[in-house]
Amino acid sequence: MAPTSVHPAPASSDYDVPGGTPEFISQELARQFAATAAARDEAGGTPQAERDALRRSGLLALSIPRQYGGLGADWAQVLDSVRQIATADSSVAHVYGFQHLLLATVRLFGQPEQWEPWWEQTARNHWFWGNTLNPLDTRTVATRHDGWWSFSGKKSFCSGATDSQMLVASALDSESGRLLIAALPTGRAGITLNQDWNNIGQRQTDSGSALFEKVRVEQAELLLNPGPLSTPFSSLRPLLAQLIFVHMFLGISEGALAQAREYTLSEAHPWFKSGVERASQDPHVLTRYGEFWAARESVRALAAEAAQRFDEAWRQGETLTAEARGRLAIAVSTAKVVAVRAGLDITSGLFEVTGARATHGALRLDRFWRNLRTQSLHDPLHYKVQELGEWALNDSAPTPSFYS
Amino acid sequence: MAPTSVHPAPASSDYDVPGGTPEFISQELARQFAATAAARDEAGGTPQAERDALRRSGLLALSIPRQYGGLGADWAQVLDSVRQIATADSSVAHVYGFQHLLLATVRLFGQPEQWEPWWEQTARNHWFWGNTLNPLDTRTVATRHDGWWSFSGKKSFCSGATDSQMLVASALDSESGRLLIAALPTGRAGITLNQDWNNIGQRQTDSGSALFEKVRVEQAELLLNPGPLSTPFSSLRPLLAQLIFVHMFLGISEGALAQAREYTLSEAHPWFKSGVERASQDPHVLTRYGEFWAARESVRALAAEAAQRFDEAWRQGETLTAEARGRLAIAVSTAKVVAVRAGLDITSGLFEVTGARATHGALRLDRFWRNLRTQSLHDPLHYKVQELGEWALNDSAPTPSFYS
Amino acid sequence: MAPTSVHPAPASSDYDVPGGTPEFISQELARQFAATAAARDEAGGTPQAERDALRRSGLLALSIPRQYGGLGADWAQVLDSVRQIATADSSVAHVYGFQHLLLATVRLFGQPEQWEPWWEQTARNHWFWGNTLNPLDTRTVATRHDGWWSFSGKKSFCSGATDSQMLVASALDSESGRLLIAALPTGRAGITLNQDWNNIGQRQTDSGSALFEKVRVEQAELLLNPGPLSTPFSSLRPLLAQLIFVHMFLGISEGALAQAREYTLSEAHPWFKSGVERASQDPHVLTRYGEFWAARESVRALAAEAAQRFDEAWRQGETLTAEARGRLAIAVSTAKVVAVRAGLDITSGLFEVTGARATHGALRLDRFWRNLRTQSLHDPLHYKVQELGEWALNDSAPTPSFYS
Amino acid sequence: MAPTSVHPAPASSDYDVPGGTPEFISQELARQFAATAAARDEAGGTPQAERDALRRSGLLALSIPRQYGGLGADWAQVLDSVRQIATADSSVAHVYGFQHLLLATVRLFGQPEQWEPWWEQTARNHWFWGNTLNPLDTRTVATRHDGWWSFSGKKSFCSGATDSQMLVASALDSESGRLLIAALPTGRAGITLNQDWNNIGQRQTDSGSALFEKVRVEQAELLLNPGPLSTPFSSLRPLLAQLIFVHMFLGISEGALAQAREYTLSEAHPWFKSGVERASQDPHVLTRYGEFWAARESVRALAAEAAQRFDEAWRQGETLTAEARGRLAIAVSTAKVVAVRAGLDITSGLFEVTGARATHGALRLDRFWRNLRTQSLHDPLHYKVQELGEWALNDSAPTPSFYS
Repeated sequence: MAPTSVHPAPASSDYDVPGGTPEFISQELARQFAATAAARDEAGGTPQAERDALRRSGLLALSIPRQYGGLGADWAQVLDSVRQIATADSSVAHVYGFQHLLLATVRLFGQPEQWEPWWEQTARNHWFWGNTLNPLDTRTVATRHDGWWSFSGKKSFCSGATDSQMLVASALDSESGRLLIAALPTGRAGITLNQDWNNIGQRQTDSGSALFEKVRVEQAELLLNPGPLSTPFSSLRPLLAQLIFVHMFLGISEGALAQAREYTLSEAHPWFKSGVERASQDPHVLTRYGEFWAARESVRALAAEAAQRFDEAWRQGETLTAEARGRLAIAVSTAKVVAVRAGLDITSGLFEVTGARATHGALRLDRFWRNLRTQSLHDPLHYKVQELGEWALNDSAPTPSFYS
Repeated sequence: MAPTSVHPAPASSDYDVPGGTPEFISQELARQFAATAAARDEAGGTPQAERDALRRSGLLALSIPRQYGGLGADWAQVLDSVRQIATADSSVAHVYGFQHLLLATVRLFGQPEQWEPWWEQTARNHWFWGNTLNPLDTRTVATRHDGWWSFSGKKSFCSGATDSQMLVASALDSESGRLLIAALPTGRAGITLNQDWNNIGQRQTDSGSALFEKVRVEQAELLLNPGPLSTPFSSLRPLLAQLIFVHMFLGISEGALAQAREYTLSEAHPWFKSGVERASQDPHVLTRYGEFWAARESVRALAAEAAQRFDEAWRQGETLTAEARGRLAIAVSTAKVVAVRAGLDITSGLFEVTGARATHGALRLDRFWRNLRTQSLHDPLHYKVQELGEWALNDSAPTPSFYS
Repeated sequence: MAPTSVHPAPASSDYDVPGGTPEFISQELARQFAATAAARDEAGGTPQAERDALRRSGLLALSIPRQYGGLGADWAQVLDSVRQIATADSSVAHVYGFQHLLLATVRLFGQPEQWEPWWEQTARNHWFWGNTLNPLDTRTVATRHDGWWSFSGKKSFCSGATDSQMLVASALDSESGRLLIAALPTGRAGITLNQDWNNIGQRQTDSGSALFEKVRVEQAELLLNPGPLSTPFSSLRPLLAQLIFVHMFLGISEGALAQAREYTLSEAHPWFKSGVERASQDPHVLTRYGEFWAARESVRALAAEAAQRFDEAWRQGETLTAEARGRLAIAVSTAKVVAVRAGLDITSGLFEVTGARATHGALRLDRFWRNLRTQSLHDPLHYKVQELGEWALNDSAPTPSFYS
Repeated sequence: MAPTSVHPAPASSDYDVPGGTPEFISQELARQFAATAAARDEAGGTPQAERDALRRSGLLALSIPRQYGGLGADWAQVLDSVRQIATADSSVAHVYGFQHLLLATVRLFGQPEQWEPWWEQTARNHWFWGNTLNPLDTRTVATRHDGWWSFSGKKSFCSGATDSQMLVASALDSESGRLLIAALPTGRAGITLNQDWNNIGQRQTDSGSALFEKVRVEQAELLLNPGPLSTPFSSLRPLLAQLIFVHMFLGISEGALAQAREYTLSEAHPWFKSGVERASQDPHVLTRYGEFWAARESVRALAAEAAQRFDEAWRQGETLTAEARGRLAIAVSTAKVVAVRAGLDITSGLFEVTGARATHGALRLDRFWRNLRTQSLHDPLHYKVQELGEWALNDSAPTPSFYS
C-alpha cells in the first residue's frame, strides 16, 4: 500500500455515460466504476469523477417525478439502481442512494412549496444532495431569530456532503430541544465540511464531520410541516434509508460473488488432495458457492418484496396507516437482518473458494467485507433482531425512529 | 407414553367440513386437525378420519381443472393449501400433497386418454391416490406379457398407499431395465400394503412397504408417452414433489412457531435473572423469536417465488425449454435448502423460548422437529447445496432426476 | 409406538455386574444398558433393573471417600463415569449423577456429624439418593415446631426420587421465607412421589412431582451449617450439578456419534450422485463427521479441564476463595455452553449422515436429541452465555445461585 | 490511508528489550510491538526494528537446547511465545514462529553434523532463518553437479526470507523429480528476494517471491537423511507448522478481543434503545462477548492439548510410531479447524460490540480479520475438516504431507 501504487484518480472524462433505460445506465456505470473501485478504495477521498458521471447520467433525478423534470422511477427501480452501483462500488452507491433519500426527506417532512422547486432545480441542474442529518449527534444547536435561525455546532457521519449542492441538516432548538431539520445550499456561509473520513470501509463516502458556525437558515428552509416522523407517511423516511442499505448490502454481496467466481474459474488451483482438475469441480468449493447462492437468494427475495411494499406505502401518502407502516417496517428490518448476515458470510467466505493468492493487495478483495462490515454498523443489528421478535411474539411494531 | 394415554382416534364424523374457498377450507381443516395432531402422532397409523374429511372437503380435486370436475386451483394455491394443513399436521399434509403430485404425475408422464378419465373419476368419487413409486428401490420387476405386464417385488416408502383408491407404481422392465410407471387401482389383486411404518416422524403417512405379487398391469395403465422425465415439461414432476416438501417444511415451521408463541405468552415463566415480569419481555427470548421470524420469512418469500414460477412453467406445457426448467429447478432447490435449515433451527430452538416445562409429553412439541427431520431426509440436502453451487459457479443446472 | 412393541422391562438379574476398576464397571454397565435403552426410552417409568445393577456395582459409593466405605474416586473420575453411562442412557446417567450430587450436597451444606453417617450408610447399604430440591418451586413450606419442622406442599422436577432411600428436600420457612434444605428417608410418612413424568426426553428419570403432607423433619436433618450457598465452598454445589450436565451432554453426543457411525458404516447407502461406492467415502458425509468431531473435541477438552479444576477447588475446602470459585464457575459455564450447542448439532445432524431409513422407530435414534434437548432446558443457556460475557467484558463472575 | 498518516517505522533502538523468563520477554515485546502494529500494518514491508528486538531478546534461540547455547524451551513454551507475540502482531509472530519451525526442520530432516553447528551458530549469532520452501510451487529445479547442486527458478510465499541469515529452500531434482530441501546462507550468490509482498493481511511477513539463479548448494547442505516426511518423526514438521498457525490464530483472537474490550469499556456508546447507561451493560453486547469467550476457550484448550502432545511426540524421536503421529495429526487439525472458525467470528464480530466509530482508520481494527483471513488460507480448511471426518468415521489418519 505504498503511495506510489495508488492509481491516479480517474477524471470525469474517463467515463462514457450512456443513454438508455435507467437500468442500462446503472449497469453500464457500474461496469465502468468497477475498473477503478479497488484503486479508489485505497485512495479514499471524494469520488469526483464518479459523482460527475452520475450527474451527467441523469440518475440523480431518477426518483423525481416526470412533472418536475425527473425520470419518474418508482422506488423499486431506484433501489435496484443503488444495488447495481453497489456491485461495483458501495461508496458511490451510498452517496447515490442518499441523494434519493434526501430528495424523499424534503418530500416527506416538508410542504410542496418547499420540495417542488428543490426537485425541479435538482433535475435541471444535476444537484447532488448531501447529508448532515445525524439525530444521535446532538452537538449542533439552532437559535431562533426573527424569521430565521442560526445553526452552530458539529456533526459527524456527514456522508456525501462534500461536492454536494444541497444539504439536509439537523439541529436541536436551543429553547425547546426539538429536532429541527432544514434543507439549505451547501455553499451557505459558515458551513465547513472536513475531509476527515478515513475509515476501514466505505472509504469514498466522505462520511466525515461538518462544522456549522452561525449558519443562517431561513424559516422557509425548515421542514416543519409535517416535520420529521410526525405521521406514518413521514415516518417512511427511515425505512427508505434502511432499504437503501439493504440494497447496498445485496449489491456488495453480488459484486463479491461475481469477483470470486471469476477468480475461481480463471485463477484458482484445485487443492492437491481434491482429485479434480479444476477448482470449480471441487465439492467443497461447490458447496460453499451453493451456500452463498442460497443466502443471496434469500436477501434478493426479501429485498424485492420490501421494495415493492415500500412503493405501495409511498403511493398511499398521508392516508398510510400506522399499522401498514408497522408491517412495512418489519418487512424492511427482516430484509436488513438477512442481508447483513448473508453479506458477512459471503464477503468473508469468498476467500475460501479463491485461495491464498486471492489475498493479493492489488485485488483488494477484502474491500467487500470492509465495506459491508462498516456500513452494517449504522445501527446495531441485534436491536433489529429484537424488533422482529417483538413483532413475532408480541404483535408489536417498532415505534418510528430515525433507525426503524 | 403408556398405551392408556393414547387418545382414541377421531371418527370421521368428528370433523365438521365447511364450505367456502379452498383457502378457508384448508384453514378450517387445519384448525380441526390440530386438536388431535399430538395424539395421532403418538398413535401412528392411518389418519382415517382426516383422510375422510379431506375427501368430503373436495380438496382432493383442488388441482384438477374445472372442466374435469375439479376446483381448478393453480399450483400456488394447491401448495399453499398443503402448507396450511402442515401447520397442524405434516403427515396429513404429506399424503394430501402427494395426492396432487400423483394427479400431476399422470398428466406429465401420460396421455390425455389416460389422465382425463382418472381426473374425472377422482373428482367425482373423491379418490385418494397413493404412492408406490420409489425409483431408488429397484426390487419390483415388470414382466411383459401379451398386452399386459405383471409387476412383482417389494417397494419401500409407499406414502399414502393405505386407504387409497389409486396407486402410481413403478417397476423395472425385466428385459430392458427401463423404469416403468403405471397408475392402477389400489384394490388390484396381488397388491399388499404393509402396515409397517413406525418411524420417528411423519408417523401418519403410512410410508411403509408394499408387496406386488404378479400384479396385472394393463398396457393402457403404463405412463409411456411421454414417460418419466422425458421432456422438460414431464421433468416438472420432481420439482413439484420438492415444492410440496418446501411447503410442508414451511407449514411445520409456522405451526411450531404458533405453538411456541402461545406457550411463551401464556405459560412460560421469566427466568429469575431476567429482571422482567413476563417471558415475552426477555431480550434473549425476543432475539430468538426475531431469528425465527427472519428465517421463516426467507423461506416464505422463496417458496412463494418458486411456486409462482412453477405455475408459469406448468402453463407452458411441452413448449417449456430445458433452460427454463433448469432455472426453475434452482429456484425450487434454493427454497428447499433454506426451508430445511430454517425449519431445523425453529423446531429445535422453540424449546429455548418455552422452557423446560414445555417438554411435557402431552404437548409433544418435539413432533415438529421429528416430522421435519424425517421428511428432510427424503434426499440428501448437501447434494442440493452442491447443485446450487454448480449453478452459481458453473452455470450448470441439475440434470433432471426424480430428486431434482 | 404401538404398545405391543414395548419390550418387557429388563429384570435386575439381566445385568451381569462385573468387578474391576470403576472405569471398567462403568463401561461394562453402559454396554449392557445400551441394549435396552431404546425400549426403555419408549416405555418410560423407573429403570428399576438398571438402578439395581448400579446398586450392586458399588458405583453408588464412587464419590464417597474410602474411610467411609466408598470407592474414594475424585470428581473427574465420577464425572467420567456419568459420561460413560450417558453414552448409553442419559436417564440413568442423570439419576446416577444426582446420586453423587446429593452426597456432595450434604457434605457442602452440612456438618460431619450429619454427612459422615449418611455416607457410611449409603456405602454399606447401597442407598440411592433422590432429589426433591427445586429452589424455583416455592410451593413447599416449612413450619417450625419444638425441635422439629413439618414440610408441606408440592415440588416439581424430583428426579430420581422414586426408588430412592434418601431424599434431599427443600422448603421455605413459613416465618422467615428462608430456604431450608434437609436430608431425610424417602419412606418418611407424608411423602408421596407421583409417577407423573412423561416428557419428550430423559424419560426414565422419574422427574415428576412430589407431595409433602406434614412431613416431620428433625432439626438434625436440616443442613443449616454452613447451609446452602453460604460460602465459596458450599457454593460448589451448583457447579457440580452443572458439571454433571456437561458430562451427560458429552456422553449423549458420544453415544449418538457411535450409533451414527455404526449405521453409516454398515447400513447407509451412498447417494446415487455421490460417485462413491460407500457412504463412508462421501465427502459431504466426511465433512459432517469432521464437524461433529471438532465439536465433540471442544466439549471433551473443556469438560476435562473444568472437572480437574473442580477437584482442585474441592480439595481446598472452606479455604476456597470467592475469586477461585468465580473462575471455576466460568470454566463450568463455558463447558456447558459449548456442550449444549455441540450436542444439539450432533444429535440433530446425525440423521444427515445416516439417511432416511435411520428414522426407523425401532432405532429411536431421535432419543439423543430428545434427551439433550430436554435436559439442556434445566436453566436457560442464553443466561449462561450472558454470564460469560459479564466475565469476559466486565471481569465479573456470577453471583452464586442454584444455577451458576 | 494518505501517505502522511504513516508513522515512521520504529528504529531498533525504540525497543527496550527486557531480561527475564521467555514468557515475560514475550509479553513485554508484545506490549511494545502493539504500539506500532497498526502503523506497520499500513506500511507493510520488513519489520526491521521488531526483528532486531527479537534478535536482541534471545528468543530466536528459544527452541534450541541449552547444550547448543539456546534457551531450551519445550514446544509448548515456544508456541505460547508465538501466541503472545501474535496478540500484538501476527506478522512478526509468523516469521518468529517460522524461525523455530525452520530450526526444527533441519533437526527433523537432517543429521546431527548438520543441525548441531547450525543451532550453535544461530544461538551465538542471533541468526534469523527464512523460508523458501514451498512444496506446491514446483518452479525451482535442482541440477546435480560433482559434489554440489545448483538451484534455479522461482519460489512464492517466502515468508521471513528478507533480513534472514539462513534459508531453508526446496527444489525438484531435474532428473528424479524428487523434492530436495537444503539449508543455506541467505547471502549465497544467485539468491534474489523480491520485496513484492503486498497482500491484504500478514503484511509484514515479507511473504513475497524469491529467485534462484544457479545458486550453488553443497551436498552437505542438503537434508537427505532422513529427509522430508520420511519417518513418523520427520513427519512432525508439518504438524509443527500447523501448530504455529493455531497459536497465531489464538493470539490474533485474543488481541482482537482485548482491543474490542478496551473500546467497549472506554469508547462505545449504549444504543438509545438499550435502556442501560453503558454499552458494557447491554445484554446483546454481553451475549456476543460470551460467545467470543466460549469460542476462544475452545481454541485455547485444544491448542494447549495439542502442544503438549506435540512435545510428547518430539521427545520420542525416531521411536515415534505412525499411529501416534496420526493421533497427533488429528489433535493438531482439530485445533486448527476450531481456531480458524472461532477466529473469523471474533475478528469480524468485534465490530458488533464496538460500533460504527470503531471503524476509524487510525485504529485499523480490521487488521485482525485481514491477518487471520489471509493466514487461514495457507491450506484449505475444508480438507482439514474432511480429514477429521476420515478419522472419526473410518479410523483413518491423514497421510503425512507438508500440510497435515
